[in-house]
Amino acid sequence: MKLSNYLFFTTKETPAEAELISHQLMLRAGLIKPAASGLYSFLPVGYRVLDKIASLVKEEMDNAGAQQLLLPFIQPAELWKRSGRWDEYGKELLRFKDRKGSWFILSPTHEEIITDLVAEVLTSYKKLPVVAYQIQIKFRDELRSRGGVIRSREFLMKDAYSFCQGEDQMKEIYQGMKQAYEKIFSRCGLEYKLVEAESGPIGGDISHEFIALAPLGEDKIVECQSCEYAFKLEKAVWQENEESSSENRCPVCQASLQVKRGLEVGHLFQLGYKYSSSLGAFFLDQTGKKLPLLMGCYGIGISRLPAAIIEQNYDEEGIIWPEKVAPFAVVVIPTSERTFNFSEKLYRKLKDASIDVLWDDRDISAGAKFKDSDLIGIPLKIIVGKTFLKEGNVEIKKRKSGELIKVKKEELIKKVEELV
Amino acid sequence: MKLSNYLFFTTKETPAEAELISHQLMLRAGLIKPAASGLYSFLPVGYRVLDKIASLVKEEMDNAGAQQLLLPFIQPAELWKRSGRWDEYGKELLRFKDRKGSWFILSPTHEEIITDLVAEVLTSYKKLPVVAYQIQIKFRDELRSRGGVIRSREFLMKDAYSFCQGEDQMKEIYQGMKQAYEKIFSRCGLEYKLVEAESGPIGGDISHEFIALAPLGEDKIVECQSCEYAFKLEKAVWQENEESSSENRCPVCQASLQVKRGLEVGHLFQLGYKYSSSLGAFFLDQTGKKLPLLMGCYGIGISRLPAAIIEQNYDEEGIIWPEKVAPFAVVVIPTSERTFNFSEKLYRKLKDASIDVLWDDRDISAGAKFKDSDLIGIPLKIIVGKTFLKEGNVEIKKRKSGELIKVKKEELIKKVEELV
Repeated sequence: MKLSNYLFFTTKETPAEAELISHQLMLRAGLIKPAASGLYSFLPVGYRVLDKIASLVKEEMDNAGAQQLLLPFIQPAELWKRSGRWDEYGKELLRFKDRKGSWFILSPTHEEIITDLVAEVLTSYKKLPVVAYQIQIKFRDELRSRGGVIRSREFLMKDAYSFCQGEDQMKEIYQGMKQAYEKIFSRCGLEYKLVEAESGPIGGDISHEFIALAPLGEDKIVECQSCEYAFKLEKAVWQENEESSSENRCPVCQASLQVKRGLEVGHLFQLGYKYSSSLGAFFLDQTGKKLPLLMGCYGIGISRLPAAIIEQNYDEEGIIWPEKVAPFAVVVIPTSERTFNFSEKLYRKLKDASIDVLWDDRDISAGAKFKDSDLIGIPLKIIVGKTFLKEGNVEIKKRKSGELIKVKKEELIKKVEELV
Repeated sequence: MKLSNYLFFTTKETPAEAELISHQLMLRAGLIKPAASGLYSFLPVGYRVLDKIASLVKEEMDNAGAQQLLLPFIQPAELWKRSGRWDEYGKELLRFKDRKGSWFILSPTHEEIITDLVAEVLTSYKKLPVVAYQIQIKFRDELRSRGGVIRSREFLMKDAYSFCQGEDQMKEIYQGMKQAYEKIFSRCGLEYKLVEAESGPIGGDISHEFIALAPLGEDKIVECQSCEYAFKLEKAVWQENEESSSENRCPVCQASLQVKRGLEVGHLFQLGYKYSSSLGAFFLDQTGKKLPLLMGCYGIGISRLPAAIIEQNYDEEGIIWPEKVAPFAVVVIPTSERTFNFSEKLYRKLKDASIDVLWDDRDISAGAKFKDSDLIGIPLKIIVGKTFLKEGNVEIKKRKSGELIKVKKEELIKKVEELV
């Protein structure tokens, strides 16, 4: 991609409305642009990150045997009345009438519609278990959206739903999803904790969250300093200002606990029979008995992930993308007019070698190009400058370590292929 | 993919509500399922077709130099008031208030929001031309949605927007998009016509539509039987029952005209300055003069394409997918328990060879498997049956021609790789 006519901009100013570093950097690097409170456009650089994350999620979901589909974002109210959530759900559920006066909602999640869908298909135990997922937008009418894409009103989510016969099948599927999530977040370059959530250490329904560690994250988690047990902080469990309280000790091994902050990036939930019972999703078992499907759901906040990754990967110059999710693997930077033509040749060669390459062909100073490249966080800079004119060598500079490698121009493609 | 626990169903009954053959077959083959009037879920088989079409569209848009981004589906009313479309647009524009009482709309198109976005970025002629696109859902509150996904209320669209300096740049971009569309529809296996649209033969703004030919399509087009000129039928131009009228002759060569029906699958439109002027998207030209951006927009109805393709590719047994958009390239069918184990080995080998393969491991009759495979339109069946038991050979049956090829089991992978 040529940067000169790329829909791209950067700004030096730290936007006043942004508290979190990820929000500041996403705005400054031109990854996103607000359209209204809690509504964001992803510009091409930001979209490339989003798309890479989505592809990576898709790959691991497919590997785990899940089936992709697409459910409508607009749902009829009738399904929500049948599940009871029409009344239960608060004002975050946006309800509206169509031109004929029928009520609809903007989906915050999709349990109702998928349960209704499978009810006619998964009618026999022979079909089970099934995990279906989609990557689709969601809407929650948050009163205060904050942190940029961390808590936006419209957002992109991967939501999966499992349908099982009995607890054993359910546990196996749940375990498979957990493992898929571990692969996904590791590949995203995230440091995360898997914690028990919502229902607390001893609860009814089982639920886990994947929390990306971030000092200013909105979620508080508690981790035992001795055993590996971790859970999401609930007011009921944690006694503020009473660190020595017995309630503030690990429920598993009684060791002392540590509070950390983070951002929820994934959620696993055993739903039980709530939706299958209310929406009539039954199957016949081996004996011909009619039973409700045992359900689970599994979410990943796709559009929130770029922010979570940035919270863990930045320095004073800007973002430092992990390789797998970087918008481009490499940027080719000519430092003057004298190296411009050669840099173009290099760019085309790299492109032909299927390297994900950006060419900074803009008519601005080399310093400004370096600054932009550091801000948007491209892992490798290929600098075609003085060294090239003097010795015929180009320089590769690594964004993360700052390491500078001199390479003969003939060997560049090979070297880049090694590094990306 | 194993068919036994795939979220998949077929029905023999022709659904009463479906007039068009594509609608009937999409419902019968379990590609889609209605959630409410004009709202459809794409089940895994249907989603695979949708995804292949979307990937193909993305590839050709990228090849044409367009940049992918993602715009919010929910848009603030304010932008639509500034463009004037808040008042101009009819009841198909769904308007609603959020919990704070502010007005928003569900996007039927995205001109306003992208014009507002580029206004701050494309401020110099040096940046131009730019073509940006997204693959995103849309909503139009049609009073009567019909034809299944052909005219649904929520639908998936590829919408591109171009920003140019002057007519010459505009023409070049428009031509590039036209060529990209030709590649896309050819790769989809569609027979189509490119016709002049809306403004008629001699009009103000230039607009073209790609029409997939279909005898029961909702769009009427007129084609000259002598020169290649074609346009969309406007009442004003065509005098019904007066075939000999001079107005019913080709405006280019005066030859007689023929009326055909079809389905709009793509639309190219030169927008002029309507949005850039009203929303303040100006750039500085080479002399420092401030000018509005010259705009174009280019749509493809992604979720309507499976239906358009089916209208041209079916027989009495069901769908006949062109190879590039088939949900699976191959289905492996064991005809009895005696060939089940070998069919599994074959399935795994094909999978390892990266062939897009489905394995019909269901405990039903061979005949029912053949029927389902024909209905959902998989291009190649690999039949592991009597011939295998007797001679060690498997049979490949082509869905379209019915041709049956006998292959030694050792040579099967190679043969399949040749055929897909």
